[in-house]
Amino acid sequence: MREFILFSRGVTREFKLNDLPNAGRMDLIARCISTAIFLSFSLRKNVKFHVVLNGPPSPPLTVTFYTNELKNVSPDERNVASHINIAIKNFSMGKKNSEPGVYIDKKSFEELIKGKIKEYGNKNIFYLHKDGEDIKSVEMKIDSVFILGDNKGIPKKEEEFISRNKIKKVSIGGVEYLASQVIAIVNYEMDRRGL
Amino acid sequence: MREFILFSRGVTREFKLNDLPNAGRMDLIARCISTAIFLSFSLRKNVKFHVVLNGPPSPPLTVTFYTNELKNVSPDERNVASHINIAIKNFSMGKKNSEPGVYIDKKSFEELIKGKIKEYGNKNIFYLHKDGEDIKSVEMKIDSVFILGDNKGIPKKEEEFISRNKIKKVSIGGVEYLASQVIAIVNYEMDRRGL
Repeated sequence: MREFILFSRGVTREFKLNDLPNAGRMDLIARCISTAIFLSFSLRKNVKFHVVLNGPPSPPLTVTFYTNELKNVSPDERNVASHINIAIKNFSMGKKNSEPGVYIDKKSFEELIKGKIKEYGNKNIFYLHKDGEDIKSVEMKIDSVFILGDNKGIPKKEEEFISRNKIKKVSIGGVEYLASQVIAIVNYEMDRRGL
Repeated sequence: MREFILFSRGVTREFKLNDLPNAGRMDLIARCISTAIFLSFSLRKNVKFHVVLNGPPSPPLTVTFYTNELKNVSPDERNVASHINIAIKNFSMGKKNSEPGVYIDKKSFEELIKGKIKEYGNKNIFYLHKDGEDIKSVEMKIDSVFILGDNKGIPKKEEEFISRNKIKKVSIGGVEYLASQVIAIVNYEMDRRGL
């Protein structure tokens, strides 16, 4: 399984689809998900995308998109965001899985990563960061988890948690890209290796 | 200058920002532009993005985004699309440049490429296609023009024009990506070469 974990400031309430940037950069979040899960004419297989919403009013919430189960998702930001909105709405009524392949739970960034360390071991988890080791020289397996931050990055406390758990920092080069571009490039590097 | 030329079915009338997919996949177009022109916290320098709109009612129209002049553009699809909408609206009143860095003209895909051949020579123009030569073995210069199609690809007539003009087909690997993902990867390959 290829997995992505995005630390975001996305809001934890329903939001307006006509103004995604003011919902804690839900545009960025939707773009990242779309880039991670889609290929031309199809969804990728075996990809999980987790976004941790740390915005108001009741953070954290973690929303997961799982490509092997997803239905009726289109690559445009508005469509992807609408599925997050539905998940948030239904969670307030106690539902953790109201659409195929979309899950939501009251789980923090650290809890999520602890689970992934148990599942895969910390050697298969990578923190995408400009100061990391060049991805081209990093050994990766088909089971890999990639952690990244939104436009404001990952806060110090969470960064220290990553560091304490000996998760390797990996860089995709000297250029600072948009989060969605980082994801496209990581998928490309993995695809090129046949993973 | 790094330039992109997208052959699209985008509409040539004003459209609703709440339904970009039904405006000839204006979501795809906006996502391609955003991916091509933005870095984290800034616009790239020296990038021109041309989208040829071949949708109804009065094709073709070519809209160009030039990063050295652009202002007030955000990476979300809705914002990028709003600038295309403004360009279309103002063109109907005879204006070809109503916002800084955004140009529009009644120019076809073939006319646009003829101009680029004159400007750069056909050796610096590349057609991004799955059956092309692997980008990793293709020599490229800082002045490079990349041609790609939307979800429906480039029609036979235009493909024959490309072939007649001896424009090289270049591939980014065995996976068929979304057009916006292709652009992220091409920028990455160029960046990695320091171009």
